[in-house]
Amino acid sequence: MTMLNHRFDIVDKATYRNGMSRLGSAVSVVTTLSDGKRYGFTASAVCSVSDSPATLLVCINRSSSSFPAFDGARHFCVNTLMPGQEEISDVFGGKISSTDRFAHGEWGTGLTGAPLLANASVNFECELTNAVDEATHRVLFGRVVNIRENEERATLLYCMRRYLHG
Amino acid sequence: MTMLNHRFDIVDKATYRNGMSRLGSAVSVVTTLSDGKRYGFTASAVCSVSDSPATLLVCINRSSSSFPAFDGARHFCVNTLMPGQEEISDVFGGKISSTDRFAHGEWGTGLTGAPLLANASVNFECELTNAVDEATHRVLFGRVVNIRENEERATLLYCMRRYLHG
Repeated sequence: MTMLNHRFDIVDKATYRNGMSRLGSAVSVVTTLSDGKRYGFTASAVCSVSDSPATLLVCINRSSSSFPAFDGARHFCVNTLMPGQEEISDVFGGKISSTDRFAHGEWGTGLTGAPLLANASVNFECELTNAVDEATHRVLFGRVVNIRENEERATLLYCMRRYLHG
Repeated sequence: MTMLNHRFDIVDKATYRNGMSRLGSAVSVVTTLSDGKRYGFTASAVCSVSDSPATLLVCINRSSSSFPAFDGARHFCVNTLMPGQEEISDVFGGKISSTDRFAHGEWGTGLTGAPLLANASVNFECELTNAVDEATHRVLFGRVVNIRENEERATLLYCMRRYLHG
């Protein structure tokens, strides 16, 4: 359903970004394989949807350089980072090419062909089940078909515009 | 779009929950007003969608006691908690009635009529723009029409099944 006839003004971008800097989250690199090439981007907008069946969602900006690879990709992997992988977060959130990004970190291949980061906190390999466009972004829904957890119990978090360790 | 013909087995609930315990996040209480009564539930599945226009999403279990109030509600508020508000998180994530939940914490009323928690890390008051059902949950998309930030820069986080301070 779509609601129209807004009665209130929407907050401006700077106010929104300042408020959102408080909504801390884990840091993940979301990857896919498209035409035999690896693509990935850093994401904080990842969350659990359901445990039955196991389903998560990821938001991707439709104007991002990685979007064409994810548009139509059937599988993707959410690689949630460990403390110490801040550089990987920065590289996959930066301006360098997709190919060069994968020079940072040790990358393997999952069941679905998606790139899996070795020594991530957790890898969630997903099969796309639905995709919904909202504002500038697309929300990708994935059924989780493979999970690999690190032996060490830790996660890289980002809150108040700085990294911290969970 | 909906994809069928899955080629891989979906992971079981326990494996999924263990993996998800690593995807740390801020802790929020999502509230609404329905037929003059206040409703709210604790959520970690909240994330930013877009800054233009300012849009976030919240996942709610369609079998939860709060769902009927949110089903059809036009406005809701995401109240992201501060360190020290762990009890509010526990109460709004527990089994007590909606009315009794609001005895915990100091609650005001927002522009839209939704309950706003005083001294939250940040309150995001939203107008519903879209809602999508996926698995057991509904994803509520909201345009942010009002933001109030705490003067103190801190947020309550939850990761590895324990609270921490961001």
